[in-house]
Amino acid sequence: MKLSRYKHDFEFSYAFGATLVLELAETHPDLITRVFLRPNLDKQGDKLRDILTSLQNLHIEIAETAKAFNVLGAKDNCLLIAEFKKPSSTLDNSKPHIVLVNPSDAGNLGTIMRSAVAFGYENIAIITPAVDPYDPKTIRASMGAVFHLNIQQFSNYSDYQNSPREAFAFMLDGNAKTLNDVAPTSTNYSLIFGNEAAGLPADFSQLATPIFIPQGPNVDSLNLSVAASIAMYEFSHKK
Amino acid sequence: MKLSRYKHDFEFSYAFGATLVLELAETHPDLITRVFLRPNLDKQGDKLRDILTSLQNLHIEIAETAKAFNVLGAKDNCLLIAEFKKPSSTLDNSKPHIVLVNPSDAGNLGTIMRSAVAFGYENIAIITPAVDPYDPKTIRASMGAVFHLNIQQFSNYSDYQNSPREAFAFMLDGNAKTLNDVAPTSTNYSLIFGNEAAGLPADFSQLATPIFIPQGPNVDSLNLSVAASIAMYEFSHKK
Repeated sequence: MKLSRYKHDFEFSYAFGATLVLELAETHPDLITRVFLRPNLDKQGDKLRDILTSLQNLHIEIAETAKAFNVLGAKDNCLLIAEFKKPSSTLDNSKPHIVLVNPSDAGNLGTIMRSAVAFGYENIAIITPAVDPYDPKTIRASMGAVFHLNIQQFSNYSDYQNSPREAFAFMLDGNAKTLNDVAPTSTNYSLIFGNEAAGLPADFSQLATPIFIPQGPNVDSLNLSVAASIAMYEFSHKK
Repeated sequence: MKLSRYKHDFEFSYAFGATLVLELAETHPDLITRVFLRPNLDKQGDKLRDILTSLQNLHIEIAETAKAFNVLGAKDNCLLIAEFKKPSSTLDNSKPHIVLVNPSDAGNLGTIMRSAVAFGYENIAIITPAVDPYDPKTIRASMGAVFHLNIQQFSNYSDYQNSPREAFAFMLDGNAKTLNDVAPTSTNYSLIFGNEAAGLPADFSQLATPIFIPQGPNVDSLNLSVAASIAMYEFSHKK
């Protein structure tokens, strides 16, 4: 049994905690390679027992071992870990996309995934370099939403945008239209967001309709996951 | 010179980093008790030099000392720290309020503050037990927004709600109206949000108009800071 603490370049990752393991098992049972259970659990709660039953019904084998929890750096309250092959998805071009250019924070990326699922966006393009969508920190912040999404990574925007598509670029400044005043004319538009610190490069205002979320003078900008979530909320009502 | 790493029950706190120190100095110069500068900075950037000049213009004394950075656990890239007395604010009852019941995550609380300033909400009530609004982690997540807000803590909701006031309670379930279908009739309403894990207790649907943000079936709920930010965005357009 070979095990090592997660690194970005692995072809597999780990879901920590019973709730995330169940979410993974229900959406991608075929991707699971191993499941580890903390041994000698005296007081298994109903919830854990239900989850173990569900996993058994999905014919997923479970190994009781303390070693995995130590090697992988699990927290004490983590009772279940799943190892899984990272999915390789292709975006559905008939659907709206969220495009994240160089996102750098796992918490933000996971939170955006959570909002995306909430507002019906199932396709996320990530332009690298970027934080890893299958980093256990991202998975945790997504509350399992990562397993409900098509996520595809591109090494630059032009690789992503290789056919004409209605697109809106969220810019911090300038001659952008306000979110309120814009509506998509198609059902397969893209909403594009930049990096936490840098925002989008200025040339995105040529590549897409520039747009911004109006805000008061005493604040630099909104948190990236907040801005993306507000945009998804608004656009999901405009479809 | 007495110094110790921040604890919740201190009457003072610390702002770490030049940008936050400047924000504090511009909004509450009277609250600053000491400012520490990392000594022997060879290559002071223009930005740091500008901030130091601004602090001098505000007649704020700066002590060069490595000790403060060690004792307070500052990161290597932190060049400036301000010690300040926590402000004691009273909410302005003629304005809309954000009411947070038992928020438990410093990042969420800071992000909510950042959005509150962006959308023109200057008054935040926090019902304890709760994460500390002046914890350095909260201050950092707020990106300085904390210094633009009236923040008042209450030990229970009835202490806060001691006079009639239009109020909306964001609930996860049930018979609530959707955010879209509700508008305040006054300018001094309250938007109430529960704890990250537990949400609001059910009795809030009696104490206020219950309301929810519609979302798809594949997600438990939105992140707290996202939900509060979407609500503020929507209500700030309805005023």
